[in-house]
Amino acid sequence: MATPLPPGSTVGILGGGQLGRMLALAAARLGLDVVVLTPDEDSPASRVVKQTIVGAYDDPVALKAFAAACDVITYEFENVPADTVDALMDLGAEVAPGPMALAVAQDRVSEKTFLNAVGAPTVPFEAIDRAGDIPAAAKALGHPALLKTRREGYDGKGQVWIERSEGETDAFSTIGGKPAILEGRADFVRELSVIAARGRDGEIALYPLSDNHHEGGVLRRTLAPAEVSRATAEQAERIAIQILTGLDYVGVMGVELFELADGRLLVNEIAPRVHNTGHWTQDGAVTDQFEQHIRAVAGWPLGPTDALRRVEMLNLLGEDADAWAKLASEPDTKIHLYGKRETVAGRKMGHVNRLRGPV
Amino acid sequence: MATPLPPGSTVGILGGGQLGRMLALAAARLGLDVVVLTPDEDSPASRVVKQTIVGAYDDPVALKAFAAACDVITYEFENVPADTVDALMDLGAEVAPGPMALAVAQDRVSEKTFLNAVGAPTVPFEAIDRAGDIPAAAKALGHPALLKTRREGYDGKGQVWIERSEGETDAFSTIGGKPAILEGRADFVRELSVIAARGRDGEIALYPLSDNHHEGGVLRRTLAPAEVSRATAEQAERIAIQILTGLDYVGVMGVELFELADGRLLVNEIAPRVHNTGHWTQDGAVTDQFEQHIRAVAGWPLGPTDALRRVEMLNLLGEDADAWAKLASEPDTKIHLYGKRETVAGRKMGHVNRLRGPV
Repeated sequence: MATPLPPGSTVGILGGGQLGRMLALAAARLGLDVVVLTPDEDSPASRVVKQTIVGAYDDPVALKAFAAACDVITYEFENVPADTVDALMDLGAEVAPGPMALAVAQDRVSEKTFLNAVGAPTVPFEAIDRAGDIPAAAKALGHPALLKTRREGYDGKGQVWIERSEGETDAFSTIGGKPAILEGRADFVRELSVIAARGRDGEIALYPLSDNHHEGGVLRRTLAPAEVSRATAEQAERIAIQILTGLDYVGVMGVELFELADGRLLVNEIAPRVHNTGHWTQDGAVTDQFEQHIRAVAGWPLGPTDALRRVEMLNLLGEDADAWAKLASEPDTKIHLYGKRETVAGRKMGHVNRLRGPV
Repeated sequence: MATPLPPGSTVGILGGGQLGRMLALAAARLGLDVVVLTPDEDSPASRVVKQTIVGAYDDPVALKAFAAACDVITYEFENVPADTVDALMDLGAEVAPGPMALAVAQDRVSEKTFLNAVGAPTVPFEAIDRAGDIPAAAKALGHPALLKTRREGYDGKGQVWIERSEGETDAFSTIGGKPAILEGRADFVRELSVIAARGRDGEIALYPLSDNHHEGGVLRRTLAPAEVSRATAEQAERIAIQILTGLDYVGVMGVELFELADGRLLVNEIAPRVHNTGHWTQDGAVTDQFEQHIRAVAGWPLGPTDALRRVEMLNLLGEDADAWAKLASEPDTKIHLYGKRETVAGRKMGHVNRLRGPV
C-alpha cells in the first residue's frame, strides 16, 4: 500500500451499518472512494459509496472481488470472522486494524488477559468452560459476579448476574451453554471512555474523555469532554497508549472505562473500531473520529483531537427518531440520521449532538 | 411533496460535480437518499450517492427515470436548461429553486433588470444585441466598460474590457458574437458575498458576509466572517432579503457584492445554488451551506447560521491539490477533496478551511 494513500484510492469497509456509513462520508471528504462488503441488499452505508459488494463475509467470490477493489480494508464491527480477515490477507489485501486487535476484542478472556499483561487494569475474572467451573470461580471473585459469553453479545445481551451461590451453575445454560467469563463486580461510580487513535507510523492521538450513560445495557447519552481531574485524564491516556502500543494498532479504538470511587480506572472493554461514545467528535472536535480512523488506516497523519465545545450526544433509539422534525428545529442540535429503513424498538436510528457551549 | 420531507426520502441533484457531491454528503447526514443525474460516467457526486442516472440533461428517458426516483429535485449549477426543468415539472417533479430563479440567473440582462426592480443596486448596464449597439452604450456608461455574453461564461470566461472607443465594436466578435451586456465599471474596494437561504415557508437565514479574493477571474480565497461595519452588514442583509423574497426563492443562494469606497454595495451577480464563497461554513458555522440547502429544498426548518470561528477558505486549483499530504498534516487546516480523476490547470480540485480563531 502506498503511504499515505493518495486521494482517488479506495477504502474497503466490512459492514454496512451506521458506523460504515459515517466512515464512508468521512472518506469522501478526503477524496477517497469507498467500497462496502455487506450481506444486506440495502444497507445504510451502501447508499453513500461508490460500490457495494453484496455477499456473506465468508463468500470467497465476494471476498476476492472486495480485495481486488480496495487499496486498504477496514471494518465497522468487531465480530468480523477471523477467517474473513485471513482470506483477505491471503488475497494480498491490507487490513487495518490488524488480526491481533480483532482476536483480542472478540474473546473476553483473551481481552482481559491482554489488558492485564500490558498493565491496563480490569475487574478480576475467571474463564468458565463448563457450568461446573462456576462455583470455584464465584467463590474466588465473590458475589455478585457477572457471567458473560466469551464471544459475541453486545448492548447487554448474553450476560447474567450471579447473585448468590444457590443454583449458580444454572446461569451457564441461561447464557446459552457456551464458553464464558465470570467477572467480579466493579463498584464503579461512573462510566467513561477514551477514543484513541494510532497511525501507521505509531503516532498516537487521544480525544478528551467521554462521560457515558447507559440504559438497559445500551448507550443513551454521552457528555464530552467529561469533567475529570488531570490525574484521571492522565491515567486514561496511559492506559490507552499501553493498549494501542501493545496491539501495534492502526485506527481508532474505543476504550470503555469504569471509574472507581477511589479514582482508579478499570478497562471494561475495548472496541477496535469507531465507537458510539465518540460520535460527539463530529460536532465537538477539530477532527471527528470517523475522519481520524480513515486517516489512520490510509496512512495519513492523524488530525488534532482538541475539543471545540462541550457536546451532549443523545442516541435516537427506535421511535425516538420519529421526533426528527422537532429535533431538526432545535437551534443547538445537530441531527445525524442513519437511513435505516425500519424502526425497531431500541434500534439505533440516529443521534443528536447538542452543542453545550465552550470547553 | 410531503413537508418536511421525511428521512428515507430521495433528493435528486442535477449535476455531478463537487457541489453536488457536498450536497449529497449533507443529505446523507440527514438520513436522505440522493440520486444524481449527470452526463458523466464517473462524476465526483456519483461516488457518494444511492444511484446515478447517466444521461444528457435533455434526454427524455433519463429525465423520466430521474423524476420518478426523486421526491424533490435541485441542482448544483445555474445553467440547467430551462427545458430540463420544464420537462421535470411536467413529469410532476418538485424542483427547487424554481424556474424563475434559473431564468434570472442565466441571463445577465434579466438578472440586473430584476435586481434593480427589487431595489438591489447594480452597476449601470446596457443590453447589446449587435456590435453596432456598443458605441452608444459605451458612451452612456463611459470607458472602460465590460462586455459580457448575456448567457453562460463563468470564472472570467466570455468577457472583455472595452478601454476606449477606437475599435470597440470588435469586442462583440471577441466574445463570440452573441447577445451581450455592457456593464459600467464598478470602482469597488472589496468583493464581498452573502450566502442566503430561504425555506419553503418563507423563513430566511443569512450567513455572516464573506470577503473574497479572486485571481484571474477565479475565486482563490475567502475570509469569513468578513470584517464589515454594522451598516454594511445590514445593507447586505436587506439586499439578500429583497432578492430571495422577489424570487419566492427556496434554497441557498450566493449573492456576490461589490463594496464601493463610499460604503455602498452593488450586486455583482447571484448564483441560485450553494456557492464557493460559502465553503467556509463547513468548518466555521453551526449549519453548513450544503445542509442548509438540503433543509430548504426538503422543507425542513433552516438551521442556525452563526459563525463558530473565523475561517480562511483557500481553493486548491489544479496542482495545488498535489500538496494534499502536507495540507492534511497542518493542525488548523480542514481539507476537502472532490475526487476528480484528472488534475487540470486551474481546475477546482478541492479546498481547505483554515481555522483562524474565535469570532
